[in-house]
Amino acid sequence: MKKKITLKQIAKELDVSVSTVSKALSNSKEISEDTTQKIQAFAKLYNYKPNNIALSLKNRKTKTIGILIPEIVHHFFSTVIRGIERVANRRGYNVIVGLSNESFTKEIINMEMLANGSIDGFILSISKETLLKQDYHHFNATINQGMPIVMFDRVVNEVQCDKVIVDDFNGAVKAVKKLIENECKNIALITTMDYVSVGRLRTQGYLDALQSSGIEADSNLILKIDDSLDVENHVEVLETEIAHFFKSNPSIDGVFAVNELYAVSAMKVARKLGLTIPDDMQVIGFTDGVLSKHATPSLTTVSQHGQKMGEQSANLLIDRLEAEEAESEQYFTNSDQKRDFIKVVIETEIIERESTK
Amino acid sequence: MKKKITLKQIAKELDVSVSTVSKALSNSKEISEDTTQKIQAFAKLYNYKPNNIALSLKNRKTKTIGILIPEIVHHFFSTVIRGIERVANRRGYNVIVGLSNESFTKEIINMEMLANGSIDGFILSISKETLLKQDYHHFNATINQGMPIVMFDRVVNEVQCDKVIVDDFNGAVKAVKKLIENECKNIALITTMDYVSVGRLRTQGYLDALQSSGIEADSNLILKIDDSLDVENHVEVLETEIAHFFKSNPSIDGVFAVNELYAVSAMKVARKLGLTIPDDMQVIGFTDGVLSKHATPSLTTVSQHGQKMGEQSANLLIDRLEAEEAESEQYFTNSDQKRDFIKVVIETEIIERESTK
Repeated sequence: MKKKITLKQIAKELDVSVSTVSKALSNSKEISEDTTQKIQAFAKLYNYKPNNIALSLKNRKTKTIGILIPEIVHHFFSTVIRGIERVANRRGYNVIVGLSNESFTKEIINMEMLANGSIDGFILSISKETLLKQDYHHFNATINQGMPIVMFDRVVNEVQCDKVIVDDFNGAVKAVKKLIENECKNIALITTMDYVSVGRLRTQGYLDALQSSGIEADSNLILKIDDSLDVENHVEVLETEIAHFFKSNPSIDGVFAVNELYAVSAMKVARKLGLTIPDDMQVIGFTDGVLSKHATPSLTTVSQHGQKMGEQSANLLIDRLEAEEAESEQYFTNSDQKRDFIKVVIETEIIERESTK
Repeated sequence: MKKKITLKQIAKELDVSVSTVSKALSNSKEISEDTTQKIQAFAKLYNYKPNNIALSLKNRKTKTIGILIPEIVHHFFSTVIRGIERVANRRGYNVIVGLSNESFTKEIINMEMLANGSIDGFILSISKETLLKQDYHHFNATINQGMPIVMFDRVVNEVQCDKVIVDDFNGAVKAVKKLIENECKNIALITTMDYVSVGRLRTQGYLDALQSSGIEADSNLILKIDDSLDVENHVEVLETEIAHFFKSNPSIDGVFAVNELYAVSAMKVARKLGLTIPDDMQVIGFTDGVLSKHATPSLTTVSQHGQKMGEQSANLLIDRLEAEEAESEQYFTNSDQKRDFIKVVIETEIIERESTK
């Protein structure tokens, strides 16, 4: 009896990476002809079909949406899932969740597993490692094989699909302008490394807000956190970095942090250094998480609208699935009639709490 | 072409509930013979196989673990998933997550979907509605069809399988004894309704600790929260209930809450009523969540060890899967050699922070 083989098993047998197998099976030019032939021959021998997605789609609708997120211990992603679930349940769909753990290889493996007959389409947010590698072949291969994808929050221009984002740039502008209005003179930014698109856009918003208010940006006041590594004592490392940053820049009287954890950690460190919030230092974060609400002082934030993002994503995906179904029931189809891809941008606003004056 | 049919579709066609279909297909005596025959005939006609789990198991190993949890926006469940993932990845398994949303029907639908060839076994925590109904036929049917289950946190005696729990009873005893040692005279309990097993055990621990210290329990000092309903303004309702409770019982000087949200909400309400923590009121929660650490004052808690629970669960499941595999490779198997079911009880301890003296 022939067992079903996976990308991971092919990779192991041929001593290459999962991503090489995945690329060879989608005829990527990055892989040498020799390797591609070897991998395709092996896959054929073991009955691996790179396009079994399309086959399964034609045969049946699972009425299930596959969600693929980078991390589970993250309030934002949880609220997005809640939003997806609400809409999915209302419209008769089930959801199933896979986790990339911010890993490129795990993202590919999970997509293969879910796409293999379990689901009708994906709602996903890209892993950090994938963004760093800028390798999006697996998304494009999935779409080419007929399975629709909706991307949310972490999206890229290189993949043509429906997307749902918040207005990261303008959210950051609003936050920094608020700090300027509140008479902060030295506004610091605590952000991620640039390869995370949302961090990059929020950083641009910070710079733009300063510039348009005639304030020169000071690179010393920007702290970029490298959280690509899965370190056990992540929070401690973060606090140490922020403490060092604040000590080196005692003039800081305002902080914009691109996520909730950075903002709450900044408040904690400031307090330890004897500063009072908001009197000595005002802090604004970016999120609508549980930590912000319950922190003392509670945190002023840019709303991230996770649940709304989830709801919009689910509606976009289900609309597309149902349009395809309606189309496939017609005798003559015109593929030009396919709906163009939509990018939904959700507006942000400032939720004022106690960490600003 | 025959489409694959699901429990949900059979239920819709025959105008009965998903649970009735599920029970009829596992020959439950609860369902009348007439209905059972009708459902089984219909299922046969549409090629639904109640035992396709067992078939798929024999044909292949997916090397994937199905996790089924009641809720995603919940730090405890997230940490359990992280623990499962760590062990699964190390041992060459993938994970996939389904959500019951605390609903009995969604639990059945998700189990059917995941069991249908996608996974090798389940790690799950039972939904509130299932606990309320005390109907566990779907777990037993899954196990009887050859797919192992490991239950964690919310477990029941009625299902024979491996289980991982924390020592809820003794954790509660330790918390209440700590409050007694700290000279609290009127110790309140904020807990869930009794059908949630962990809430019940923690309530018993509270009562036992009082009794063994010669303190008579006062039913006025026990607040049972009904959170079975999915209300939008859940936190506001919770805070209103706690405020009413504190106002009716001004003598309360110690609070043991069975989860983090109740504990943090109690502190918030107490502060609004002009009480100082820990001077006027000491509070202990049950969890090791992010809120406890970042709350001001930070919350003393009974550690719940979510990640450790996840790791233990994954090891139990994979051990069993691999033992079965080894067994099936032998010519003569002796089913008596099967490992007995194990119940892992994880010890709890008090993590002292600022909300106690």
